[in-house]
Amino acid sequence: MAHYNKGANAERELLRIIYDNGFGCVRIAGSGATILPSPDIVALSPNKKISFECKAWNSNYLNVSITQMTELIKWGEISGTEVFVAWKIPQKGWLFLKPEDFAKKAKSYSINQKQAFKKSQNLAVILGKQAVLKE
Amino acid sequence: MAHYNKGANAERELLRIIYDNGFGCVRIAGSGATILPSPDIVALSPNKKISFECKAWNSNYLNVSITQMTELIKWGEISGTEVFVAWKIPQKGWLFLKPEDFAKKAKSYSINQKQAFKKSQNLAVILGKQAVLKE
Repeated sequence: MAHYNKGANAERELLRIIYDNGFGCVRIAGSGATILPSPDIVALSPNKKISFECKAWNSNYLNVSITQMTELIKWGEISGTEVFVAWKIPQKGWLFLKPEDFAKKAKSYSINQKQAFKKSQNLAVILGKQAVLKE
Repeated sequence: MAHYNKGANAERELLRIIYDNGFGCVRIAGSGATILPSPDIVALSPNKKISFECKAWNSNYLNVSITQMTELIKWGEISGTEVFVAWKIPQKGWLFLKPEDFAKKAKSYSINQKQAFKKSQNLAVILGKQAVLKE
């Protein structure tokens, strides 16, 4: 239950951030418990459609099961939304990762924290509020 | 609880119908209980974005509170989705109504069943699966 609440609270936090950026944003009911593929959060504006699978835990690695990642990618194709894994690391903030940022292992897609910080996209850029800065 | 279940079951039924039409489709968590405007169901494909507020009851009139209809319209603007009130009438099926199909009364937006059958749009047309038939 504590684990569930931590995840749900992280989802609500992200929902609020995205909503404050002028998007319509919703948490999905029963995601994870339904037979139909669906993400945790969908963010919509007249110009953008984005889906997020949220993870909130503090570890050196983030592992997403092959089933869950496959469903997320399938969801993105069916819905026409851009998909991200949103990883909240306590005391460090949110990272936004594309499925292709993960390495496919035997039982899961995996990324370590160092790589995740390097690969993470800026939420303002994802939401179209800020151009990508050139290096 | 029985009332809640009837509504939730109707939402799941509609979800399944839309999903079977090739859309990504999700039920929204906590809609009605959140301070952020949100519909009951969002349906997405690469070309379409549609939101549904679901009602499931058998009566001669469907009344939607002014607050709820105002939020649905606002949600449509922010998210860039086309919005419908989906009314399931037991033993008669689903009707799909636009906010402008309702008459604004003192405390609610209202439509009677006869008008609703006349105004209802075909789900296949809404989903872009079938052209509108000319009279």
